[in-house]
Amino acid sequence: MIIAMYEELTIKPPFFEIGPKAFFYGERMLKLAKAADEASAKYDVRIILTPQPTDIYLLAKETENLLIFAQHMDPLPIGRGLGSILPEAVKAAGAVGVMLNHAEKPMTMADLYKAIRRADEVGLATIVCADSIREAEAIALFGPNIIVAEPTELIGTGQTSDEEYVRATTWAIKRINPDIQVLPAAGIKNGQDVYNVIKAGAEATGTTSGIMKAEDPEAMMDEMICAVRVAWDEVHC
Amino acid sequence: MIIAMYEELTIKPPFFEIGPKAFFYGERMLKLAKAADEASAKYDVRIILTPQPTDIYLLAKETENLLIFAQHMDPLPIGRGLGSILPEAVKAAGAVGVMLNHAEKPMTMADLYKAIRRADEVGLATIVCADSIREAEAIALFGPNIIVAEPTELIGTGQTSDEEYVRATTWAIKRINPDIQVLPAAGIKNGQDVYNVIKAGAEATGTTSGIMKAEDPEAMMDEMICAVRVAWDEVHC
Amino acid sequence: MIIAMYEELTIKPPFFEIGPKAFFYGERMLKLAKAADEASAKYDVRIILTPQPTDIYLLAKETENLLIFAQHMDPLPIGRGLGSILPEAVKAAGAVGVMLNHAEKPMTMADLYKAIRRADEVGLATIVCADSIREAEAIALFGPNIIVAEPTELIGTGQTSDEEYVRATTWAIKRINPDIQVLPAAGIKNGQDVYNVIKAGAEATGTTSGIMKAEDPEAMMDEMICAVRVAWDEVHC
Amino acid sequence: MIIAMYEELTIKPPFFEIGPKAFFYGERMLKLAKAADEASAKYDVRIILTPQPTDIYLLAKETENLLIFAQHMDPLPIGRGLGSILPEAVKAAGAVGVMLNHAEKPMTMADLYKAIRRADEVGLATIVCADSIREAEAIALFGPNIIVAEPTELIGTGQTSDEEYVRATTWAIKRINPDIQVLPAAGIKNGQDVYNVIKAGAEATGTTSGIMKAEDPEAMMDEMICAVRVAWDEVHC
Repeated sequence: MIIAMYEELTIKPPFFEIGPKAFFYGERMLKLAKAADEASAKYDVRIILTPQPTDIYLLAKETENLLIFAQHMDPLPIGRGLGSILPEAVKAAGAVGVMLNHAEKPMTMADLYKAIRRADEVGLATIVCADSIREAEAIALFGPNIIVAEPTELIGTGQTSDEEYVRATTWAIKRINPDIQVLPAAGIKNGQDVYNVIKAGAEATGTTSGIMKAEDPEAMMDEMICAVRVAWDEVHC
Repeated sequence: MIIAMYEELTIKPPFFEIGPKAFFYGERMLKLAKAADEASAKYDVRIILTPQPTDIYLLAKETENLLIFAQHMDPLPIGRGLGSILPEAVKAAGAVGVMLNHAEKPMTMADLYKAIRRADEVGLATIVCADSIREAEAIALFGPNIIVAEPTELIGTGQTSDEEYVRATTWAIKRINPDIQVLPAAGIKNGQDVYNVIKAGAEATGTTSGIMKAEDPEAMMDEMICAVRVAWDEVHC
Repeated sequence: MIIAMYEELTIKPPFFEIGPKAFFYGERMLKLAKAADEASAKYDVRIILTPQPTDIYLLAKETENLLIFAQHMDPLPIGRGLGSILPEAVKAAGAVGVMLNHAEKPMTMADLYKAIRRADEVGLATIVCADSIREAEAIALFGPNIIVAEPTELIGTGQTSDEEYVRATTWAIKRINPDIQVLPAAGIKNGQDVYNVIKAGAEATGTTSGIMKAEDPEAMMDEMICAVRVAWDEVHC
Repeated sequence: MIIAMYEELTIKPPFFEIGPKAFFYGERMLKLAKAADEASAKYDVRIILTPQPTDIYLLAKETENLLIFAQHMDPLPIGRGLGSILPEAVKAAGAVGVMLNHAEKPMTMADLYKAIRRADEVGLATIVCADSIREAEAIALFGPNIIVAEPTELIGTGQTSDEEYVRATTWAIKRINPDIQVLPAAGIKNGQDVYNVIKAGAEATGTTSGIMKAEDPEAMMDEMICAVRVAWDEVHC
């Protein structure tokens, strides 16, 4: 019995996640967001941007094509809970989705399950991070929209090719629920890395430091989004 | 040796803290904020409002007199830290301060100390919560701007009068650092409660559920801010 | 692909879990443990006892039949980690297993997965708690030995019978991995409650407050273990 | 008004803390503990040993002179709280004290305050860790028996001598409460380091990796305890 997913937001592949974490905020974030907004239209690639919660309102208002996702939210109901991030408040600020369970903000299994249910309830898509293939399968049972797969088991083992890595994670997740989209992320540093992952069959990929630490973040972002389009067309056209 | 406090924002007493926690957000929050903005001018009472992080930008932009404080922030530096609330991002969104260490979002002693330092660094005033008089003293050593004192030790003991309570907490904190402002909060339900606390000598008080759960939150807010002014004038004029 | 389970400890059903939490410790714990040790032999029922970590050594040494499980352990390796509970230390003290992810000590998904792997590595059986049927399925993917199922979804809905409850959870877990043992726990207060759960088809059940808060804990424990045996024989003989 | 301290256990200086963290446990821990037990008598130096919770019972039973402290405990009362470490259970197992708020197990300010009160209540001495001089002062207000001072502010600044460091921390704490004992700890690697700290005026010091990672931990421990005695006699005789 596959769990019902949030279905209002379907992200047409290929797509790309830009994760500013706590690197960019305010004006600097807005500048990158506007450039990404244009790149999304120019290359016909969907872009998920996960800004600081305080930036959601402005970015949602000032961009047209970006999919603004919160970095995290708490599964609490409306009411008490000072210091929390309320699902309804995230939605009201203009986000269309939320990231959950990143390795830098891990959630208990019970909270993760509740947060995905709360996201469905208020109308937010979910992108959930998994540390291993086995965890990706467990998360797949909870019915998120997207799973970010960074299986530390496989990375750096030497004999693991990009293709094997993408195939193994994708297969494991789709076996549980074929509607879940899979975003393999593994140290994407430039357009070539992006090209390789998409060429290997992925629907999506993403980066934080690849863009945030680039000398020219807007140029690097453009290079990466362009690489998504090129690789996607080679595989799918 | 008294620790240097953040001095750019001096809140002229009397003042009042409205804590929406996860009760109000988005449009509903904005409506109350605008009413509070007017009440602040009308009664010449400073109002601290601590909204959800996603509401900071809009509320700071749409109000003139309110002091918008974040409900919480993390003491991390710019960089990694997905799911965090970055001090610089809070400031950039328009907040002038931050609440820390509320009983619903308790901080480790090390993080609390760092967060107060970070607030000073980026230019945010701090309002820090204490569970007991002893904790209030410890927090006073860290040099926050305001301490919210809800000493569970004294509340509900029967023989404790409002005046004794306000005096004991205020004295304990001011003995460490006379520049720290003290906000006694103890189940404020209506204008009369507000009147009693300010009449007993407090510079400030505040509430969450007194307003959030009121039948007419805007009317109750107005009643409370008015009570602050009336009591203050009786004591100080 | 079913994940390899820890196989050195096979608990022959029926069995019963006594959870002292932070109610009993030291001498009082030892007295109950000795009585349970006798009851285990007398009724041919396996008893899992989860004492405070400080009591593991003494209870393992002073009992013969009890299965001593830690209440929790951390997934860290040998080395740094002050304030942790090291898997190897739990094993060395005489425990044969460990409980993980109880609602009062919830674990992140990543830590839970790692802790089950660490348990396998050092030779400890695992009894993992699940808040809902969906979480029980996700946990089943991680290959624990036993899952404690307390599906809040079903409890207290009125139309839910004990039998339905036991069947639904058991079926969901065994469908993922038939070797995982299922322990339904739902407010067991006396021997009759125990009888009903086992009679409904369960291999095991357990309690905390049913025994800890009983007027005569040893007598109540004896009544419950006896009820396990009676119900089991009625179903299986 | 100085807070009342736990006074049943007075540790006569000089003393030394050995912190096995999650390095040593079971038989290996017992071997080191027995050697330390002898060294304590031989050199007339009090030794605090903070083993894994599962080792407290055995070590307390098998040693005569060691002061066995838990690595951590939770401030909960007897009752619910699975996965916790109950103060009464720590005491019953034979510990005479507890370490609190180590950087690897940081506590919220409220929990730290409660845990010190609970320790006083059940009869456990407290050794509390502080990350900075300011935190050490705040902790001093809570009335612990010993403060471990590792002020990251001063360490590694180059111009900071051992003596300055010991004096600054000691003075700051004793100014708040002269009865609190101060244990400066700063990368103690061998007997010479121990000698320097005690020679600089400290009542105590301690180490984890200095002993745990030594080629011959028992020999290194003996060298360090001997250095405590030699330095102490040079200063105080």
